[in-house]
Amino acid sequence: MTTQLSIRPAVLADLSAIVAMLADDPLGATRESPDDLTPYQDAFARITAAPDQHLIVAERENRVVGTLQLSVLPGLSRRGTSRTIIEAVRVHDTERGNGLGTELIRWAVDRSRELGAGLVQLTSDATRTDAHRFYERLGFVPSHIGFKLTL
Amino acid sequence: MTTQLSIRPAVLADLSAIVAMLADDPLGATRESPDDLTPYQDAFARITAAPDQHLIVAERENRVVGTLQLSVLPGLSRRGTSRTIIEAVRVHDTERGNGLGTELIRWAVDRSRELGAGLVQLTSDATRTDAHRFYERLGFVPSHIGFKLTL
Repeated sequence: MTTQLSIRPAVLADLSAIVAMLADDPLGATRESPDDLTPYQDAFARITAAPDQHLIVAERENRVVGTLQLSVLPGLSRRGTSRTIIEAVRVHDTERGNGLGTELIRWAVDRSRELGAGLVQLTSDATRTDAHRFYERLGFVPSHIGFKLTL
Repeated sequence: MTTQLSIRPAVLADLSAIVAMLADDPLGATRESPDDLTPYQDAFARITAAPDQHLIVAERENRVVGTLQLSVLPGLSRRGTSRTIIEAVRVHDTERGNGLGTELIRWAVDRSRELGAGLVQLTSDATRTDAHRFYERLGFVPSHIGFKLTL
């Protein structure tokens, strides 16, 4: 049995815990620097200044145990449908397998509806096959190829 | 030989031409309503009010011949890297095969750099195999699966 979970907007005091989760990941380990928070502080300020960005954390017993970022994109396609994009989903390793990932994504889907979106989208690295099954179980359709160009 | 092309922010007077291009497409034909611009006008207002949204058109001889939307997403991942997302890329059918698509995407990549992004990403429907070759030629890597959930 797990104790009460709360999902709330991230504050600056959560930053170190969020970055630790970003880094504690096979892909994240190669591209994050949890010992130097400076670049993350700048990015945190940009995110909180942008009304269409929603960076949230899941907290249990005063510990940050999960995070994701939800972005709203207004657009013309599909008769002017706004969409949301889910990025940077992470669950603390002590919480894996207990349904927290599902709670986070369900929160993001519900929040997307409240924000007036008609579509939720995300991309997942092709190597994360467990994640793909997870998103399909939640009703997401793997209809697209995700392309990236590093600048 | 083609005449001079300009790429500029979209204005409300471009809306009907943009929506016609969104609809003139195997997938778009099923989900757009070019004869009723009302929902698009509302969406256009939301896009132009959002500083991180850049809806642009390509114009040749006073005709709108291409469009795309570039969105800036600040984020914590990759040491606080901002990314851009390219959506709703369309080229008028009279202009296909003459390099306009390449010019549009190159514009978006250059603009992403100017906006301080470290990554450009987009998703393309798995059925658009010609588009996939096009993006790969421009240096994009098909590293991800794109998931969507319609609300």
